Amino acid sequence: MAVGPGTLPTFFPVAGVRLGIGSAGIKKPGKKDLVVIELAPGSRVAGIFTRNQFCAAPVHVTRNHLAGEAPRYLLINTGNANAGTGEQGMKDALSCCQALADHAGVSAGSILPFSTGVIGEPLPVGKIVSALPQALADVSESHWAEAASGIMTTDTRPKGASRQIDLDGQTISISGISKGAGMIRPNMATMLGFIATDANIAPDVLASLSSELGEASFNRITIDGDTSTNDACMLIASGQSGGPEITADSPSLPKLREALREVFLELAHAIVRDGEGATKFVTIEVSRATSVQEALDVAYTVAHSPLVKTALFASDPNWGRILAAVGRAGVDGLDLNALEIWLGDVCLVRNGGRAADYSESRGQAVMDGEEITIHIDLRRGDVSERVWTCDFSHDYVTINAEYRT
Amino acid sequence: MAVGPGTLPTFFPVAGVRLGIGSAGIKKPGKKDLVVIELAPGSRVAGIFTRNQFCAAPVHVTRNHLAGEAPRYLLINTGNANAGTGEQGMKDALSCCQALADHAGVSAGSILPFSTGVIGEPLPVGKIVSALPQALADVSESHWAEAASGIMTTDTRPKGASRQIDLDGQTISISGISKGAGMIRPNMATMLGFIATDANIAPDVLASLSSELGEASFNRITIDGDTSTNDACMLIASGQSGGPEITADSPSLPKLREALREVFLELAHAIVRDGEGATKFVTIEVSRATSVQEALDVAYTVAHSPLVKTALFASDPNWGRILAAVGRAGVDGLDLNALEIWLGDVCLVRNGGRAADYSESRGQAVMDGEEITIHIDLRRGDVSERVWTCDFSHDYVTINAEYRT
Repeated sequence: MAVGPGTLPTFFPVAGVRLGIGSAGIKKPGKKDLVVIELAPGSRVAGIFTRNQFCAAPVHVTRNHLAGEAPRYLLINTGNANAGTGEQGMKDALSCCQALADHAGVSAGSILPFSTGVIGEPLPVGKIVSALPQALADVSESHWAEAASGIMTTDTRPKGASRQIDLDGQTISISGISKGAGMIRPNMATMLGFIATDANIAPDVLASLSSELGEASFNRITIDGDTSTNDACMLIASGQSGGPEITADSPSLPKLREALREVFLELAHAIVRDGEGATKFVTIEVSRATSVQEALDVAYTVAHSPLVKTALFASDPNWGRILAAVGRAGVDGLDLNALEIWLGDVCLVRNGGRAADYSESRGQAVMDGEEITIHIDLRRGDVSERVWTCDFSHDYVTINAEYRT
Repeated sequence: MAVGPGTLPTFFPVAGVRLGIGSAGIKKPGKKDLVVIELAPGSRVAGIFTRNQFCAAPVHVTRNHLAGEAPRYLLINTGNANAGTGEQGMKDALSCCQALADHAGVSAGSILPFSTGVIGEPLPVGKIVSALPQALADVSESHWAEAASGIMTTDTRPKGASRQIDLDGQTISISGISKGAGMIRPNMATMLGFIATDANIAPDVLASLSSELGEASFNRITIDGDTSTNDACMLIASGQSGGPEITADSPSLPKLREALREVFLELAHAIVRDGEGATKFVTIEVSRATSVQEALDVAYTVAHSPLVKTALFASDPNWGRILAAVGRAGVDGLDLNALEIWLGDVCLVRNGGRAADYSESRGQAVMDGEEITIHIDLRRGDVSERVWTCDFSHDYVTINAEYRT
């Protein structure tokens, strides 16, 4: 049902990053549910994680390991989130790290584990450990597409993005994959994102890019307002492209940042387009707010309103529901007569009511499309923010009344 | 589809309060869509209203009039919310008040208007004014049931509650009606509540009861987290029962408060039971929080989670989704290992994971019922709060992808 074609791009290999896929049979025998990402020595990794206080064991372990030695492997399994598993869950996550470390000849602390899937079931360590040799033997720089499929859970299609740019005479490649379809909203959602580049990036710049770009992309999407327990978005820089280290002052940083931003956004949007039951890809833009928080409060209130989302499903230009959502967003001293609401290029609301020049057929024409922009111009400041979401359909209910997560 | 039998009670007439119903044909010809509540001179009225900043013209007018002279009539129409109608909407609301004032021989400022229904369409003043004589001629102390029906919009059934108590040798009657099914959550929701008693209550006590009981009932329900533009809950005390004025020190105040509380709760719960597409009536109790805000943050996060609500629809004891919701409620320093989650009398979560003595069949047994209690014991303070909600079903989507509000 997803929105848009969603075809995988051709991935540019990223020097120093190899991916291998295996079948641990965690949920279903024969399913490709294990992905190993091998990093050349000297690779740097930064990431952002769920802020849900109920956070899964692998998130704790990955955070700890990231703060310690240099990472060498990412280990990702689907079918089981290893969340709500208490102390045992921590032990299980560490056992998997140790097993991979033994096979690969590295230390357990250089392994970053990630899990996604059912909450509350013990991690089937034995199955994962048994499949490690297969995944390790499979590693190749050309396996991005396979990895994109390997990390899927309720996704209907794999998600990837890739760019190649020239940076001061050096060819830099960026490739990334993501997954996530339900239990999605900042901070963050049952989503995983892995973006790698062979650029040589100073650690502080990497951390800053990871957090800035993650915030502007993965932390601006919401499907159902539910924040998951396992989210992570990792940015890997292998440094293998050659070329000088990119520091905060490098003139090539802006160009690199833009290319990375495009990849982050494409991957984040792909998650919304594949939202459970989604038929519409919706951009909610709030402009001229007095602060980021205010803009986001308004944007998310609209994005989470079941009445707005069901209207979107119905292709119904129901501005009353949008205005009701804006009105309850908690903006101090909001002047409803000052703001404007636009659907695409059609002004819906002005002066506290339906715009005089609005016609149902024009609004309908916008709502009939698959890609919809709702623009709320608060006209009280100079801050703008954008959030992306999808509609609420019957399929969302069907999918979630049946899937045990 | 609603939950529970939902039969109207036998209403006790309230001396000094007469209700009349008319057909203005606002949305459909012949439909009973106009209700007039006439109050004997000396009646006192207090109320609580939507905190949605996008609030409808009638809400503005009623608030203004309440602050002025003593109210003599409440005028309620369905089929049109007179919201998002700007200056014209204010004029239209006042025109209706003036017309009723002229017919009844009172001043326009003693009329309190209420509207519910479609947002953004101009109020059909002519139709309303034409039906006023019919409604006025119909007034009777015995018309509570008719009034309950007269205020319905997407409700599948009328809602009422009634009590009679002995207060210091005086028989006191309390009757109330409510409406609301979608766009429901504090503060407040497309709901209207009208509760009347013939008790003689001092103005400050009345205001305090209205706000305290309204807060504990109508402001603790949520169906879809969407707050409407028109909500109001009015408490009327005609004083016609005879007996001394009840002041803050009256020994009979506690007994009166309890009877009123029961009526407020019954009316508020009736709205949840009739929630659009509801198949479950869910009590979410958060106990041992450190503050009211904290308890409510947790309760509402669970109550609004589409994943929890679809699991409820599926009768799925999906504790992982409940825990994920608790974890994202934004409680500072929450210790997930300390809290407990109970489904009815079955402990679901303890020590950060599934309770050791939990069995799927016991959880399932609770979830199969129509009335479900989810109890989250935070074990970090001494404040408890309760919120009531319903599940998220296919019918919610169907209803809201078709109804233009």
